[in-house]
Amino acid sequence: MGEDAVLRRERVIRFSDCDPAGIVFYPQYFVMFNELLEDWFSDGLEVAFNSLILERRIGLPTVRLEVDFSAISRMGDVVVLLLAVERLGRRSLTLALRCEGQDGQRRMAARQVLVTTSLDTHQAIDIPPDVRAAIARTTEFTP
Amino acid sequence: MGEDAVLRRERVIRFSDCDPAGIVFYPQYFVMFNELLEDWFSDGLEVAFNSLILERRIGLPTVRLEVDFSAISRMGDVVVLLLAVERLGRRSLTLALRCEGQDGQRRMAARQVLVTTSLDTHQAIDIPPDVRAAIARTTEFTP
Amino acid sequence: MGEDAVLRRERVIRFSDCDPAGIVFYPQYFVMFNELLEDWFSDGLEVAFNSLILERRIGLPTVRLEVDFSAISRMGDVVVLLLAVERLGRRSLTLALRCEGQDGQRRMAARQVLVTTSLDTHQAIDIPPDVRAAIARTTEFTP
Amino acid sequence: MGEDAVLRRERVIRFSDCDPAGIVFYPQYFVMFNELLEDWFSDGLEVAFNSLILERRIGLPTVRLEVDFSAISRMGDVVVLLLAVERLGRRSLTLALRCEGQDGQRRMAARQVLVTTSLDTHQAIDIPPDVRAAIARTTEFTP
Repeated sequence: MGEDAVLRRERVIRFSDCDPAGIVFYPQYFVMFNELLEDWFSDGLEVAFNSLILERRIGLPTVRLEVDFSAISRMGDVVVLLLAVERLGRRSLTLALRCEGQDGQRRMAARQVLVTTSLDTHQAIDIPPDVRAAIARTTEFTP
Repeated sequence: MGEDAVLRRERVIRFSDCDPAGIVFYPQYFVMFNELLEDWFSDGLEVAFNSLILERRIGLPTVRLEVDFSAISRMGDVVVLLLAVERLGRRSLTLALRCEGQDGQRRMAARQVLVTTSLDTHQAIDIPPDVRAAIARTTEFTP
Repeated sequence: MGEDAVLRRERVIRFSDCDPAGIVFYPQYFVMFNELLEDWFSDGLEVAFNSLILERRIGLPTVRLEVDFSAISRMGDVVVLLLAVERLGRRSLTLALRCEGQDGQRRMAARQVLVTTSLDTHQAIDIPPDVRAAIARTTEFTP
Repeated sequence: MGEDAVLRRERVIRFSDCDPAGIVFYPQYFVMFNELLEDWFSDGLEVAFNSLILERRIGLPTVRLEVDFSAISRMGDVVVLLLAVERLGRRSLTLALRCEGQDGQRRMAARQVLVTTSLDTHQAIDIPPDVRAAIARTTEFTP
């Protein structure tokens, strides 16, 4: 996946990410990947995530998630978060997400399917044309 | 799954569970299900979750997660959280988790595979005999 | 404060409330007290917290907080959360909050000043008459 | 305080920091300031925060907190987080914390008193000599 990633960010594992076992509490990975999604929109696609939600009232709820956890992350670790686009549908977007150690060892990998919705009706809507165009323009799709 | 659930708990969706879209921020479902897991251990299996972690130094990290989200939950909603056991392996445990509205409508469903580990080595270990016996004694397995 | 509390709730300290030191991560106390505030509104005052926020678009941001932490709470502890009203102003509300062990030992105590705001302008507004009346009707003020 | 700050970091307000009112959920400020504390230790003092907690088993619980919130922060805002040292005691450390907008407008300010404890006994212990020396060497104290 590494070569197809459209975004790659380093992040320090924080005290507040970890549980009494001293390792990342797994729901916190999804918080980290949501930050990555925001950065991809705001920096990569140049579609401000906050105005998408707050002004345009378009939501991006997750409808499907498949995750494999293969190694732990500890407080203080610097991890690498990667995002690739697997599929761009009419109303949905499939992302491949990965967390690696700095040595390239995979810690966890996820496939996430998101849909665009109206935040007024919470019904699925087509991906807005500007978002679609920005994704198509900047993404090399994972085969 | 309803009839096979070994634990069923109502929970109010809190302000702090929700995001700027006014609905549950999806990682928060996993926090809720972790509470359900704790309750199942402490109340259902009579194996105190805190002493498992802190005294016996046995962890229960997630190794696989598959989730389908089918309807949103809003702040103030009372949801029903259900836990069933799909499989009890030598070192792993497969759970079926579900969140429903009070009308029985499915909001999300997950399959979660957990392994027992030593919190000193973070390597997988056999499920401790008392935990295994408690699960076997109290669980009707989902076919 | 015990005798003046308008709400008293037991709560189990969760795995997800705790940090790598095995004790409650202190911001999590404020999440717990926010749950208590929601319960006070919804159950004690019979003013649904979710409709206050989502439908009436009235916010309750905190403007001042003073907190003393005197003893730790560990995962699995059952704590008692208490809420009393110290002062009901025109646009603000001063709460006395406390977390105790089941033995009555104080773990932490806070004074929190909240104001009512319009969520459209984020400016302070008068406490709505129904909320004021419900507080006045049900509260014995701490001298 | 600006000129006395020993650490100054920009941070984007994330979707996951915000509540259904669309603004930072106030406990999340303390999560942000804990990140700042970690960075100050690891980068400013060159005392790795993770080894302090996990290897040396020294905790830094908060014993006193005073906070004033003066303006809201919204998702997508870039805020500036500042940390200054007000007092270095034998077993305690008093920090002045501030969150500002990029225009320098104060959003919130806090005074936080932390103590060093043994994570085995949870009793206060003297600030370790290397930590004390690093603070003394790098800090211009706020009068």
